[in-house]
Amino acid sequence: MNIIKGGVTAANGFLASQAKAGIKYVGRSDMALVYSVVPAVAAGTFTTNVVKAAPVKRDIMINNAGGKVQAVVLNSGIANAGTGTLGDENDLEMAKVTGEYLGLAPEMVFTASTGVIGRQLPMDKVKEGAAKLTASLEGSVEAGNKAAKAIMTTDTVEKECAVEVEIGGKTVTIGAMSKGSGMIHPNMATMLGVVTTDACITKKALQKAVSAAVKLSFNMISVDRDTSTNDSLFVLANGQAKNTEITCTGPEYKAFYEALLFVLTTLAKKMAADGEGASKLIECKVIHAASEEDAKTLAKSVITSNLTKAAVYGNDSNWGRTFCALGYSGVQFNPDIVDIYLEGRKGIDGELVDGLTLKLVENGVDAGYSEEIATKLLSSKSVTFIADMKAGKASATAWGCDLTHKYVDINADYRS
Amino acid sequence: MNIIKGGVTAANGFLASQAKAGIKYVGRSDMALVYSVVPAVAAGTFTTNVVKAAPVKRDIMINNAGGKVQAVVLNSGIANAGTGTLGDENDLEMAKVTGEYLGLAPEMVFTASTGVIGRQLPMDKVKEGAAKLTASLEGSVEAGNKAAKAIMTTDTVEKECAVEVEIGGKTVTIGAMSKGSGMIHPNMATMLGVVTTDACITKKALQKAVSAAVKLSFNMISVDRDTSTNDSLFVLANGQAKNTEITCTGPEYKAFYEALLFVLTTLAKKMAADGEGASKLIECKVIHAASEEDAKTLAKSVITSNLTKAAVYGNDSNWGRTFCALGYSGVQFNPDIVDIYLEGRKGIDGELVDGLTLKLVENGVDAGYSEEIATKLLSSKSVTFIADMKAGKASATAWGCDLTHKYVDINADYRS
Repeated sequence: MNIIKGGVTAANGFLASQAKAGIKYVGRSDMALVYSVVPAVAAGTFTTNVVKAAPVKRDIMINNAGGKVQAVVLNSGIANAGTGTLGDENDLEMAKVTGEYLGLAPEMVFTASTGVIGRQLPMDKVKEGAAKLTASLEGSVEAGNKAAKAIMTTDTVEKECAVEVEIGGKTVTIGAMSKGSGMIHPNMATMLGVVTTDACITKKALQKAVSAAVKLSFNMISVDRDTSTNDSLFVLANGQAKNTEITCTGPEYKAFYEALLFVLTTLAKKMAADGEGASKLIECKVIHAASEEDAKTLAKSVITSNLTKAAVYGNDSNWGRTFCALGYSGVQFNPDIVDIYLEGRKGIDGELVDGLTLKLVENGVDAGYSEEIATKLLSSKSVTFIADMKAGKASATAWGCDLTHKYVDINADYRS
Repeated sequence: MNIIKGGVTAANGFLASQAKAGIKYVGRSDMALVYSVVPAVAAGTFTTNVVKAAPVKRDIMINNAGGKVQAVVLNSGIANAGTGTLGDENDLEMAKVTGEYLGLAPEMVFTASTGVIGRQLPMDKVKEGAAKLTASLEGSVEAGNKAAKAIMTTDTVEKECAVEVEIGGKTVTIGAMSKGSGMIHPNMATMLGVVTTDACITKKALQKAVSAAVKLSFNMISVDRDTSTNDSLFVLANGQAKNTEITCTGPEYKAFYEALLFVLTTLAKKMAADGEGASKLIECKVIHAASEEDAKTLAKSVITSNLTKAAVYGNDSNWGRTFCALGYSGVQFNPDIVDIYLEGRKGIDGELVDGLTLKLVENGVDAGYSEEIATKLLSSKSVTFIADMKAGKASATAWGCDLTHKYVDINADYRS
């Protein structure tokens, strides 16, 4: 597998565009379109929040119907959630208008919205935006990058990833973009994400791979424990790589799944690192847990603890908060045998800056570590806790970010 | 029932004291003692965190054994959690030394610690503190108030409450103190709280009343979703009111339970309002839910949402966040019939400042409210959301606080 440049336009037969529709933001793009030159097998995962945005309700129906999809149109000004029947009508209208310009039925167009909850979409602006989007589709790396920028809200950087992998003698490409910075606590779903691939794959295999990969990537991050109303991850596979169709088993499925998991995990970590107000990525690896479910629950409990998040912001090796968060996770374990480490500093790409790993806790009590080294490790842009439960063979990793003054700044006055 | 002045010394036959032991803080008291002149029926609730502090482990054993208790000794410098066997030994030593001065066996002395996790108690200082405490016991209102101050950590005000209630022709008094400001998300337990009463009551009835009242008071507040390792609520009933012994049923039990519930709810609200960095109390009343369990879960989801908490801090009527938090609570409901209100401003004591109630959401969409009035209501020291689920007859109330810059200040650098 090779990491390559680009995002949603990396795979063969995918184009993208963006437009300044003026839905909320002035002077920046706030609509984006991803388009496949041929109808694509589609899969997705969506928010588990009972309060679902209009586009989410519609997309779930389309995904369940199982037909091919050819476009995803997104706006980043207004969430179109808490908008009732008028919101549903506006969402369908957004799909219809976009589809008409592209010669597609509305059920071949996924829609996605993100932004303020409770306001109605300004449909004149949306329609103008759709006209611009459909008139400016391009397959370049730059077009993909600009689309990734157009879907940002409080994000500070765009999130893209693309890889190439050999499957059955053919080169298959998977590219993706995502956005998300606040209201991030995905659960069987994610924020907004679009994955495009030229793989030839069955609908069943594609949904299986996405559902499994999401559990280990987007579902393992949290910024603020708030699961959004609009979480949507779309995957379009257009078959342009001309590989033999991938089904639910065999080495081809495994190769595709692993490449997809890499792409989603990369985006998930980028999202956690760019959490609202975040100055650092926090990673928690739980090892030797009794079950994978336990390991996941423990790891998520640590990265969602406000007290741990604030301590990491302050470069304070207050391991009691990490230990405490393991303890209230709901998982039963013996606290008297737990070890907790700070891993040697790493870049977001996983590269180890130095090899040192510092033991903070040994068998449930202070290990007598150097505060100086702890402070150095905590001062990094990426802080990793390792919790060794000594209870079994399962492990899991979760990602979050620190809790900062800037998070409060952003969220005390988001609507203005 | 009458509200009276005072706290843990309000009931007949209870004394209290405090001491500057220098365990963590310099220049302020950091140990406290509550003493009953005769052995008292004891009950309590303790943290559900798997990682339990040494005193919690010992107190649970004492409470389960069911014998009478005559004293509670507390320190507010070090949590004595994550301290292994030495921590257990130190905790027992604290009970032993205190008991020796008072002529009590160690199993008649509850212990409580709060503060930094992972450090060992400085036993020389603890022993000196115990000597001072036992030499200065007093039954005055002031002594109770000073004890309430001595158990504070990041609290900004002491929390006390006392009531008188007629039971079987006798005046029964219930007094209490508690502390707690951060790591507050009690679950079948609480922070540190000591309740004293001169009621004559069976152990079984006392535990029944406490366990039930905690579920509607301390278990319905949250500052930061972090359930502490040290949560402990102690109740001592010494029978000095000379009422006929209260058992698990009858109007006497009911009168006692209601007075106890009032005391615990008052303290719980004071704790939420004094949450770390808090500028406001946030209350969420859920009405017409399908079940009491649903109502509780929905109300707690709103008051623990970081995004709701930050919006309230910013006086921003961003009801989408409240609606979103209801949606991800785990409770199933129909979002298209939900109404959300802001209640007229109230003081912490429940007194209504003005009668206005503002409808923000009607049947799942914006109700077209006045932003000016919303901002006024949100600018109060006490903000109440009412969510009408229109699904049944159950209701519940939960209390929390806003998320502020000061919370981050306090917790980025707690240990120093």
